[in-house]
Amino acid sequence: MDTTALWFLIGAVLVFFMQCGFAMVETGFTRSKNAGNIIMKNLMDFCIGTVVFMVLGAGLLLGEDALFGLVGIPNYDFITNFATYDWSNFVFNLVFCATAATIVSGAMAERTKFSAYCIYSGIISLVVYPIEAHWIWGGGWLSRLGFIDYAGSALIHTVGGIAALVGAIILGPRLGKYVKDASGKVVKVNAIPGHSLTLGALGCFILWFCWYGFNGAAAKSISELAQILATTTVAPAVATVTCMIYTWLKNGKPDVSMCLNASLAGLVAVTAGCATVDAIGAVVIGIVSGILVVVIVEVLDLKLHIDDPVGAVAVHMGNGIWGTLAAGLLSTNTASAGVDGPIYALIHGTSFAAGMKVLGVQALGLVCIALWTAVTMTVSFLVIKKLHGLRVTPEEEILGLDRTEHGMPSAYADFLPAVDPTLGDAYAAVAVAGTVPPAEAVEVKSVPVFEEESEEKSSRPRITKVEIICKERMLETLKNAMIDIGITGMTVSHVMGCGIQKGKPEYYRGVEMEPSLLPKVQVDIVVSKVPVRSVIETAKKVLYTGHIGDGKIFVYGVQNVVKVRTGEEGYDALQDVEQY
Amino acid sequence: MDTTALWFLIGAVLVFFMQCGFAMVETGFTRSKNAGNIIMKNLMDFCIGTVVFMVLGAGLLLGEDALFGLVGIPNYDFITNFATYDWSNFVFNLVFCATAATIVSGAMAERTKFSAYCIYSGIISLVVYPIEAHWIWGGGWLSRLGFIDYAGSALIHTVGGIAALVGAIILGPRLGKYVKDASGKVVKVNAIPGHSLTLGALGCFILWFCWYGFNGAAAKSISELAQILATTTVAPAVATVTCMIYTWLKNGKPDVSMCLNASLAGLVAVTAGCATVDAIGAVVIGIVSGILVVVIVEVLDLKLHIDDPVGAVAVHMGNGIWGTLAAGLLSTNTASAGVDGPIYALIHGTSFAAGMKVLGVQALGLVCIALWTAVTMTVSFLVIKKLHGLRVTPEEEILGLDRTEHGMPSAYADFLPAVDPTLGDAYAAVAVAGTVPPAEAVEVKSVPVFEEESEEKSSRPRITKVEIICKERMLETLKNAMIDIGITGMTVSHVMGCGIQKGKPEYYRGVEMEPSLLPKVQVDIVVSKVPVRSVIETAKKVLYTGHIGDGKIFVYGVQNVVKVRTGEEGYDALQDVEQY
Amino acid sequence: MDTTALWFLIGAVLVFFMQCGFAMVETGFTRSKNAGNIIMKNLMDFCIGTVVFMVLGAGLLLGEDALFGLVGIPNYDFITNFATYDWSNFVFNLVFCATAATIVSGAMAERTKFSAYCIYSGIISLVVYPIEAHWIWGGGWLSRLGFIDYAGSALIHTVGGIAALVGAIILGPRLGKYVKDASGKVVKVNAIPGHSLTLGALGCFILWFCWYGFNGAAAKSISELAQILATTTVAPAVATVTCMIYTWLKNGKPDVSMCLNASLAGLVAVTAGCATVDAIGAVVIGIVSGILVVVIVEVLDLKLHIDDPVGAVAVHMGNGIWGTLAAGLLSTNTASAGVDGPIYALIHGTSFAAGMKVLGVQALGLVCIALWTAVTMTVSFLVIKKLHGLRVTPEEEILGLDRTEHGMPSAYADFLPAVDPTLGDAYAAVAVAGTVPPAEAVEVKSVPVFEEESEEKSSRPRITKVEIICKERMLETLKNAMIDIGITGMTVSHVMGCGIQKGKPEYYRGVEMEPSLLPKVQVDIVVSKVPVRSVIETAKKVLYTGHIGDGKIFVYGVQNVVKVRTGEEGYDALQDVEQY
Repeated sequence: MDTTALWFLIGAVLVFFMQCGFAMVETGFTRSKNAGNIIMKNLMDFCIGTVVFMVLGAGLLLGEDALFGLVGIPNYDFITNFATYDWSNFVFNLVFCATAATIVSGAMAERTKFSAYCIYSGIISLVVYPIEAHWIWGGGWLSRLGFIDYAGSALIHTVGGIAALVGAIILGPRLGKYVKDASGKVVKVNAIPGHSLTLGALGCFILWFCWYGFNGAAAKSISELAQILATTTVAPAVATVTCMIYTWLKNGKPDVSMCLNASLAGLVAVTAGCATVDAIGAVVIGIVSGILVVVIVEVLDLKLHIDDPVGAVAVHMGNGIWGTLAAGLLSTNTASAGVDGPIYALIHGTSFAAGMKVLGVQALGLVCIALWTAVTMTVSFLVIKKLHGLRVTPEEEILGLDRTEHGMPSAYADFLPAVDPTLGDAYAAVAVAGTVPPAEAVEVKSVPVFEEESEEKSSRPRITKVEIICKERMLETLKNAMIDIGITGMTVSHVMGCGIQKGKPEYYRGVEMEPSLLPKVQVDIVVSKVPVRSVIETAKKVLYTGHIGDGKIFVYGVQNVVKVRTGEEGYDALQDVEQY
Repeated sequence: MDTTALWFLIGAVLVFFMQCGFAMVETGFTRSKNAGNIIMKNLMDFCIGTVVFMVLGAGLLLGEDALFGLVGIPNYDFITNFATYDWSNFVFNLVFCATAATIVSGAMAERTKFSAYCIYSGIISLVVYPIEAHWIWGGGWLSRLGFIDYAGSALIHTVGGIAALVGAIILGPRLGKYVKDASGKVVKVNAIPGHSLTLGALGCFILWFCWYGFNGAAAKSISELAQILATTTVAPAVATVTCMIYTWLKNGKPDVSMCLNASLAGLVAVTAGCATVDAIGAVVIGIVSGILVVVIVEVLDLKLHIDDPVGAVAVHMGNGIWGTLAAGLLSTNTASAGVDGPIYALIHGTSFAAGMKVLGVQALGLVCIALWTAVTMTVSFLVIKKLHGLRVTPEEEILGLDRTEHGMPSAYADFLPAVDPTLGDAYAAVAVAGTVPPAEAVEVKSVPVFEEESEEKSSRPRITKVEIICKERMLETLKNAMIDIGITGMTVSHVMGCGIQKGKPEYYRGVEMEPSLLPKVQVDIVVSKVPVRSVIETAKKVLYTGHIGDGKIFVYGVQNVVKVRTGEEGYDALQDVEQY
Repeated sequence: MDTTALWFLIGAVLVFFMQCGFAMVETGFTRSKNAGNIIMKNLMDFCIGTVVFMVLGAGLLLGEDALFGLVGIPNYDFITNFATYDWSNFVFNLVFCATAATIVSGAMAERTKFSAYCIYSGIISLVVYPIEAHWIWGGGWLSRLGFIDYAGSALIHTVGGIAALVGAIILGPRLGKYVKDASGKVVKVNAIPGHSLTLGALGCFILWFCWYGFNGAAAKSISELAQILATTTVAPAVATVTCMIYTWLKNGKPDVSMCLNASLAGLVAVTAGCATVDAIGAVVIGIVSGILVVVIVEVLDLKLHIDDPVGAVAVHMGNGIWGTLAAGLLSTNTASAGVDGPIYALIHGTSFAAGMKVLGVQALGLVCIALWTAVTMTVSFLVIKKLHGLRVTPEEEILGLDRTEHGMPSAYADFLPAVDPTLGDAYAAVAVAGTVPPAEAVEVKSVPVFEEESEEKSSRPRITKVEIICKERMLETLKNAMIDIGITGMTVSHVMGCGIQKGKPEYYRGVEMEPSLLPKVQVDIVVSKVPVRSVIETAKKVLYTGHIGDGKIFVYGVQNVVKVRTGEEGYDALQDVEQY
C-alpha cells in the first residue's frame, strides 16, 4: 500500500465520524423532547446524502470539467467501471459533502418538519455542494485562480453556515424564544438551554479529534501533515482560551458552552489555511475566532433575533468566512502549501501586489460561493415552504418533535427511576450537622404559640398532616431529628419553591436567565400519637439558621389513614416501625 | 514499517473500539436500572475473552490445522517464543472474537445472572468461536472450498446472533413483556423502551465508524481498501433510507430506533461481501437489510414472542445470514476479491455452474456454522441453567440488576429528580397482575371500619381527597381498578417513602451506602359521587400482598373543586370523562 | 510518506482523544451539579497547556540539553524556522503533556476554584512536566542511565497522580465526605456516587481505545507495535478480571465502577513496560494492578481520609509506580525493547547484577521524579492557596460549581420533565401569552359561584390551600398572574395527570404504547390575606382556553402555617416577600 493513499482513507474515516460529533453537539444543545428527531436528522443527512451523491453529486463534483470550470459532467463509471473507479476519491468527497449538509440541521433544530429536512438535505448533497465544490476541489475555475481552501472553511463551513442562516431566517424562531409587544417589537430574549452539556461536550471533543483527519487527510508529506496537525491544534486552543478570557471579562464568569463553541470556531477558521499559515498565523486566527464566535452568537440572538439553537451560523459561517480570508491574509511561503499573502509579502520582501492578489482571490471566491449558496438555498427553502411546508405546527413544536414526528414518547423513556438526588447533597448536610452545635443549643426566638385550628375535642385520636418545605440539603438532618422524636414514616418529594429573589444574574450563551424557581424538598408527616407541636418545634430547631430560605411548615387535618397490609385504620395505622 | 501491516493493526484497534459502541447501544436501549450491569457485561466479555483466548482459543483458531481442517492444534508459542510470535494476528483475531461474544449480551439483557453471563461468554471465546473461525480464517476446510466471508457476516455476526437467539429462547422474556391469559396464550405485547436513545445512537455511530476497520483491516491494496470503504458506506446508508421509507409507509412515521438498527443491519449484511460485490450489489444488500431488520424484529416480538431487547437477533443473525448468501449471490469478478456468483455469471457470460457453486458453498458454510453454534450454545445454556442458574429471580429483575447483581443503587445516583419510570416498570405490574388470581379473590382481613372523621350531614355533596402511597410497580393495576369503579381522573407523582428498613448493605467504591429513602408513587383521587369507602376498599384489594411495603391511604376533606374549562365548581366539576 | 512517521502522528491524534475520555470519566464519576465545571477544566487544561507549552514547555522538554541533562534550553525555532521545525515531535509531546495535566482535575474535582485550576494546570504544562520529561524523552540524564519508561507510567501517570495526591491533601475533602466527631476524628465515611456511570464507562472505553496510540505511537517496527498492542491488551484485561474476582470475594458482588478503574489501572501499569515485558509479564502486571487499585482507593478513603472523587491517585500514581518498577523487574530481552531484569536474568542465565541494575535505575528514576513533582506541586498549591485561594466557599460547593463558577444553572437544564421544564417550555407560554389578547379580555362563562365549604365565622384569619393542576407550559403565565394579585410564594411540583384520552396510537419498535399518563404541574398556594376567590378567578382567567386539559383547582383548609426563620405562625407567617 501507498502510505499517503492510506492516510487519505484513514482521514476519510475520521471525517465520517464527525457525523457522530455533530449529532452529539446538536442533541446536547437542544431540548430532550427533540432528541430523537435531531439524532434522526443527523443520521439521515449522511444516508440520504450518500444516495443522492451517488445518483448525481459525485458526477457534478468529480466529473470531467465543463462550462469553463463551473460544473463537472456526471458519469456512471462507478457502476460500469467498478474495478477501476477512483473509490478513494469518492469516499473522501462523500464524507466531506455530508459534513456540509449536517451543519444546517443545528440552526434549524426543534421546529423543522422532518420530511422538509429530508428534502433540503438531499438538495444540498445533490447539487448545491457538489457544484461549488467542483470549482475548487474538482479542478474548476476557482482552483485555477489559486483560491486557498485547504480543507473547506469556504466550501464546507461557509456553505453549511449560509444555508443554516437562510434556513433559520425563513423558518423563524422557536416558540418562546422572543417575546414581542403589540407592535411586533421584540421586548425580551429568552435563553433556551439544551438538555445535556455533557453530550454537547462529547460531540465537541469528537469533532476536534476527527478534525485532524478533516484538515490533514490531503497532506502529501509527513512534514506537511505535522504542520497541519500543529496549526489545527494551536488555533482552536488559542480560540478557546481567548473565549474564556473574553466571556470572563464580559459576563464575570467563564462561559462553558461558549468555550466549546470557540473550540469549534477555531477549528473552522484554521481549516482553509491549515497548510498555508505558520504558528503565528494560527495564533492570530484563534484569537479572532474566539471572540468572533461570541459576538456573532450575540448579534444574531440579541440584535437580529435570528434563532440558531446550537450556534451553527456563528461557528461555521462566521468563522468559515474569517478563516477563508485569513488563509489569504496570513498565508506564508514558509508553510508547506503556502504562498506569501500581503502581510508576509511585506515581512519577506516579496511582491505585495501578488500578496494582495492572493487575498483578492479569497474574497472573490467567498462572494461567489456565498451568492451561489444563498440563492440556491433561499429558492429551495421557499419552494419547500410553499409546496410542502417547512415548519411543524405550534402544537407539535410544544409537544416535541420526537412525539409528533416520530411517534416516540421520549428519547429518555424510563429514564431515571426517581433516584434520590439527596444521596449526594444530604450527606453534606450530615457533615455540617456534625460540626455545628447540637440542635438543642440553637436559640429559637420565642413567639406566641398559634393554636391549631379546629382543635375540637373528640373521643377519637386526631390525625394531622404536617407538611414541611425546606432546602434539599437539610433533608437528612430533618429526617434523623424526626426519627428521634418517634416519627416512623414520612413521604418526601421534590418540589420547586417559587419566591421573589434578588441576586446576581446568570447567563446562558449571553442571555440572562431568570432563576425564580428553586429546588426544595417537601416532607409530609402524618401524626397521631406524636404531638403536632412537637413535630413543628423539632422541625423549627433543626431547620433554623436565620437566613432567608429556612422553609415553612403547613398543618392540615386528616380524616382517616389506612394501612394496606394490615387493614388497620386511623390511629392504629400509624403505630408501626415500617413505613407503608 | 510495512504500510499494509500497519493498517491491519490500526484496523484491529478500531475493532476493539466496537466494544464501546456495543456497550452504548445495549445500555441505551435497555432500562436505567440495568445500565451498570450491561456495561459490566460488555466490559467483561472482552476481558474474560482475552484471558480464555490466550489460554485456548487462539490455539484452536490459529494453530496448525488438524482433523481435516476442523480445528487448529493449540500451542503456547506466545509464551515460549514471545519474540517471534505473530502478535499482529493474535491481536487481530482476539478483537474479532470479542465482537462475536459481545453480541449475545444485548438479546439476553435485563434478566441474565451476571455469573452465568461470565461463564457462557467465556465458552464462546474459548471454543465456540475459535473452532468455527478456524474453518475459514484459520485455513480450515471451508476456506479451501472458497467460502466467502471477508470480515465475518457468518463467522462473527451469524454466530453471535444465533447464540443470542438460543439464549433469549432458553432464558424467556423479561417480566411484563408479554401478557398471557389463563391458557398461556399471549394476549398483549408491551413495549419496554430503553432509557436513552442518545446513548444508543452514540453507540451506533461508533460502531459504523469502527466498521471501516472491521471490514477494511484485511485489505491488501489501496484500491481494495477504497472499494471496501465504499461498499461499507453504501450498504448501511441505503439500508437506513429504506428502513425510514418502510417504517414511514407502514406506521405513518419514520421510526428512529429502527433506522439506527437498520444502519447496523446494512453493515452486518455487507460484511461478508464487502470486497466481492460492486456498488449495485451493495445497494441491493442495503435495500433488503433495511426491510429485513424490521420484519425480523416484529416477527420475533409479535409472532414468536421471543424477547430481544436490543434487536440483536434481527441485526446480527438475520442480516448475517442474508449477507453471507448475498456475498455469493452478488459476487462479481470486477470487485477486488470477487468471483462471479450466479447473477454476474449470467451478466458477464461466465460459467453459471461455477457461479451457482459459489452460492452453494455459502449455503453449505452457513448451515454448518449455524448447526455448530446452535448445538454448542444450546448445550452450554442448558447445562448452565441446570447446574448454575441462568436467570435472576423475579424480585431481582424488578428491582434491577444494578442493585441486585452489583450492589449499586443506580448508575445515575445523584442524577436529576424523577421522571415517569412507569413506562417500563408498570408494564411489569400489568403482566404480574395478569397471571395472579383476580383481585376479587384476594382475601382481605376483615377489620372494623373506621368511620370517616367530620362526616357531618350537609345539603351539599361532600368532596374528599384520597391519597394513596404505594410501590411504583402497582400503579398500572391501581389505575385500572380505579377506572373500573368509575374514577375518571387522578394525579400521580413520584415521592420518596422514608422508613426504617433493614437489609444487606450496599457498597459504592468500597463504602457502605444508606438506602433509607425508597421510591414510591402517590396517587391523589378527589371524589364526590363515588363513595370514599369504595375507593379505599378497592385500593386495599389491589395493593394487598401481605408483605411490608403494601402502602398507606390517607383521607382529607376538600372545600371546593373548580374545573377551569367549564367554570363548574364542586360536585359538578368532578362529573366528567376527561381529567383536567 | 514514511509509514513509521505517519503512525507516530496517528498515535498523537489518538492521544489527543484521551482528553475526551478523561472528560467523560471525570464527569460521570462526579455529581451533576459540577458537570459543566469538570468539562470546562478538561477542555481548558488542553487549551491552556497548548499555549504555555508553546511559550516555554516545548523548549524545556525538547531544547538542547543543558545542566548535565537536567533541562533543555528553550528556543523559538517554531516561530523563526516554521518550515523546518520538527512539528511531529511538537504535536506528539504536547498531547502527552496535556495528559499529565488532565489527571489532576479528577482528584480535585467538585471543590477547586476554576481560576486556581487554570493557574496550576498551566504550571504543570509550563515547567513541572517538561523538565522531568526532558530527563527521559528529551535525552536527559535518566535516559542515559537506561531508565525504562516506554510511554510514561512514570513521566505521565506517576507525575499526574502525585500532583493529584498533593492537591487533594492540600484542598481537603468535599463537604459531607467525612463526618467528624468533636475531637476531629472521622467517625463516618460517606459514599458520594457520580451522576452517570454510563458516561464514566464511555470515558474508560475511549481511554482504552486511545491507549493503543499512547503506548504504540513510538514503535519503530510492526513486530514491536504488535507486541505493544498485545501487552496493552493483556494487562488491562487481566487487571479487570482480577478486580472483578477480588471485589466479588471481598464484598459479595462484582463492583462495576472498580472494574472500570481496574481497566485503567492495568493500562497505566503496562505503559512503562509495554515494549520490554512479555505476555507473562503483562499478566503479572495486570493481576497486581487489578488488586492494587482497589486497595489504594480504600486505604486513601477509609484510612487516610483523602478524598479523590474519581480514583485518580490509585489509578495513576499507584499503578504508575507499580508499572515503572514492573518494567524493570519483569523486563526481558525477548521483548522488542527489553533487556533482562533480575527475574529474566535468572531464567535466561544472564547477568543478575545487570538485571538488578535495571531495577535500581527504575527505583532511582521514580524517587527523583516523585520528589521533583511533590516539591514543585506542593509549593505551587500552597502559593496559590495563600495568594489566590484554591477552594470555593462551602456555599458555592453546596450549590454546585456550574452555577457559582460559570453562571450556568445546570448542565442538564431542560433535561427530563422532572426538572424545571419552565426554562424551555414556559417561555413558549410567555410568548404565546404575549400575543394573545390580555387575560382580562378572555370571556369567562358566568357560572353560579359555589360557596366554599365550612366557611364558618372565626375570629382568627382563615388559612386556605389552593391547589392548581395545569399544563406545564402555562406555569410561567400562572406564576406571573399570581404575583400580580399579591401572592408571594408558591410550591410547584411535577405530577402525572391520568385521564381517559383518545388519540393516534404511538409505536415503539413496532409495538403500540399506551400514553395514558400526561405530565402536568401542580401549583400549591397557601393564602390568608389574599381572598381565595380572587386566586381561583385569576387562575381560571389565565388558564382558560376552552380546550380539554385546561386544568382543575382544588381548595383545602389549612390548620396552621409556621415560618421557620422567624418562628411566626398562622396569618403572620404568610405576610412576606420571600418564600420559605
